[in-house]
Amino acid sequence: MSTVKLPANPEADPRVKAVFDDIRATRKSDFINNVWRYLAFDPPLLDSVWRDVKAVMATPSALDPLTKEMLYIAVSVANGCGYCVHSHTAAARAKGMTPAQHAELLSIVALAGKTNHLATALQVPVDASFDQDHCRA
Amino acid sequence: MSTVKLPANPEADPRVKAVFDDIRATRKSDFINNVWRYLAFDPPLLDSVWRDVKAVMATPSALDPLTKEMLYIAVSVANGCGYCVHSHTAAARAKGMTPAQHAELLSIVALAGKTNHLATALQVPVDASFDQDHCRA
Amino acid sequence: MSTVKLPANPEADPRVKAVFDDIRATRKSDFINNVWRYLAFDPPLLDSVWRDVKAVMATPSALDPLTKEMLYIAVSVANGCGYCVHSHTAAARAKGMTPAQHAELLSIVALAGKTNHLATALQVPVDASFDQDHCRA
Amino acid sequence: MSTVKLPANPEADPRVKAVFDDIRATRKSDFINNVWRYLAFDPPLLDSVWRDVKAVMATPSALDPLTKEMLYIAVSVANGCGYCVHSHTAAARAKGMTPAQHAELLSIVALAGKTNHLATALQVPVDASFDQDHCRA
Amino acid sequence: MSTVKLPANPEADPRVKAVFDDIRATRKSDFINNVWRYLAFDPPLLDSVWRDVKAVMATPSALDPLTKEMLYIAVSVANGCGYCVHSHTAAARAKGMTPAQHAELLSIVALAGKTNHLATALQVPVDASFDQDHCRA
Amino acid sequence: MSTVKLPANPEADPRVKAVFDDIRATRKSDFINNVWRYLAFDPPLLDSVWRDVKAVMATPSALDPLTKEMLYIAVSVANGCGYCVHSHTAAARAKGMTPAQHAELLSIVALAGKTNHLATALQVPVDASFDQDHCRA
Repeated sequence: MSTVKLPANPEADPRVKAVFDDIRATRKSDFINNVWRYLAFDPPLLDSVWRDVKAVMATPSALDPLTKEMLYIAVSVANGCGYCVHSHTAAARAKGMTPAQHAELLSIVALAGKTNHLATALQVPVDASFDQDHCRA
Repeated sequence: MSTVKLPANPEADPRVKAVFDDIRATRKSDFINNVWRYLAFDPPLLDSVWRDVKAVMATPSALDPLTKEMLYIAVSVANGCGYCVHSHTAAARAKGMTPAQHAELLSIVALAGKTNHLATALQVPVDASFDQDHCRA
Repeated sequence: MSTVKLPANPEADPRVKAVFDDIRATRKSDFINNVWRYLAFDPPLLDSVWRDVKAVMATPSALDPLTKEMLYIAVSVANGCGYCVHSHTAAARAKGMTPAQHAELLSIVALAGKTNHLATALQVPVDASFDQDHCRA
Repeated sequence: MSTVKLPANPEADPRVKAVFDDIRATRKSDFINNVWRYLAFDPPLLDSVWRDVKAVMATPSALDPLTKEMLYIAVSVANGCGYCVHSHTAAARAKGMTPAQHAELLSIVALAGKTNHLATALQVPVDASFDQDHCRA
Repeated sequence: MSTVKLPANPEADPRVKAVFDDIRATRKSDFINNVWRYLAFDPPLLDSVWRDVKAVMATPSALDPLTKEMLYIAVSVANGCGYCVHSHTAAARAKGMTPAQHAELLSIVALAGKTNHLATALQVPVDASFDQDHCRA
Repeated sequence: MSTVKLPANPEADPRVKAVFDDIRATRKSDFINNVWRYLAFDPPLLDSVWRDVKAVMATPSALDPLTKEMLYIAVSVANGCGYCVHSHTAAARAKGMTPAQHAELLSIVALAGKTNHLATALQVPVDASFDQDHCRA
């Protein structure tokens, strides 16, 4: 069940084909997962989202690829996005996440959920020493 | 401004003193940040939360300490907990997070926020290949 | 799957029938979607929710009906309510939302998700010029 | 800092005065807290919100007044509404919430935050026995 | 569909068997619901989560068992955790929650959702009288 | 209070100057609000976020500028981002939002918050007629 109709033959549109080809080349895989196939209902939106994902997630950077996927999972869990939890857990596993690392990721996410609720319930004031910024006007 | 009164002399209670001493010993620092000082309004709750945090965050494990702090930040941002964003950004910095790593963390958290909203707006169905579980009753 | 049993013959209760009749008359349609049929497990709650929805969404006002549905979708996405995303996307489409407008709505919702996360991660202080209220006691 | 200007003399408008008088009479107190004073920028909105709050929170019902305030706090914490956490914690305290009850409320809210994150991270399928509804069309 | 494989014979691991036995004994029921069966993919995590749930939810305390379940539901709804809403609604019903109490719980949760959004949209400043803490450094 | 230090003289970096100049030219105003001044701690992140905001919010499109700002507010409220609620309320006002439109926006956001919570609490199944997609594999 989705809120837009899955395009029947999305790659008939050359803009979609260009993005799908780039996804396949970047990931070295023929598999195009559903979020891209649904986003194809609007080729400019598809293009812009893929560009953003490629720049952040598929370009060598200061953080290693597995850490990046685990951060993505952490945010997706907190935001309650079931699709994203699934797709990024699969991606993390493909990048070598072990069951022990998965369990540890879950224990950190769960603990943060717990203490986030506590700090909000207490309305704890921020310690002055945490402030990076003593000179704002 | 908080919803409980900051205990005036919390370490007069030996249960609070035991926890604060363990925080100082574990972190090799005299600084006790506000969330612990406010949680001291209920010593058993303080003890139970610290036990949980110590076991997950201050015990050697499959993930390195900086990665763990960054995961904590990611969840805290998505949950909108200002105090936790501050305290764990300070902790990540103390564990060596560089400005470049911080910026990259922010770009991943922001991207996840974006695609989480998109997948939810589209109500994308989960790809069958993501399912780890084909045999549930 | 739901947490209350769908009432078998809800309109046998005259309080439910009155609400359902008003929904049909207001919307000029015989279709009663599921949220109303489930809410019928408690007729006073059903009545109070419908009254609220009718006053805000089905009464001519400063904003046009399509804009109102798009605002409803935006909140429902951010709150992660799948049912509401579905029902208000259907309503927006019935009120004339084009695929281009839908794509643009999605791009705004996604961008807001992104910058909301960034501003929270940075804990950006509010600019003084945004404050509407310089005289609170 | 707020997004609307605090009305200078809100009770000059008889619609606002009527609501404020009813708040004072219902609560047997002269204190009008800020959310009502700011909502007075739009008297019909003020009236409609107060009506809703009065019907649910200030009318004798199946749940006792303290339980109702604690439920309100629980939702407000999970939604990250600082103002609401403050106002309903004050209300719960005025209705007799002891420090021990407050601490227990916090421990339940924190635990729910933890297991909510875990169940979402695991994408646990709902047990068939939890379904109240085997006959939906 | 889940993100970890449901362990085929989880009680072959004595650590899992010990937890499941304690769940059955504590609840006086043979039924082990899915969240525990999936958490069994990592026995230490299972053990630690159950310990936490047992201490907070299955130990006599200042709040009665039904109130505790309703608080759990309230948080789970606000966090959008479908599994948790289902499991704790079933638990509340098992502990005597009537349809009228359920409807009232829903009306409070819904009202809190409404006013949480309003207070956030207005950015209402917290009333000075709500502050419990006039002496923080 | 923020988690990064406000750069002292950000436009000394030509990458920051280029973005700030474009913000001023696009908005026809000298005012650079805080989120951009803090994002300047990482010029590539600043550049990428501004590009995204400019493309979606400051380019003529299917939706009018005021509607777009109101949608941004709606998402920001639901995500609990105080800074974003402030900045986009100011932007909407600058684009002509009247107090009556503001009040109506708030009433829709509040109503959506209410029914989002109800639909989640009930776990209402999505009506078959809402599905746009009957042919997914």
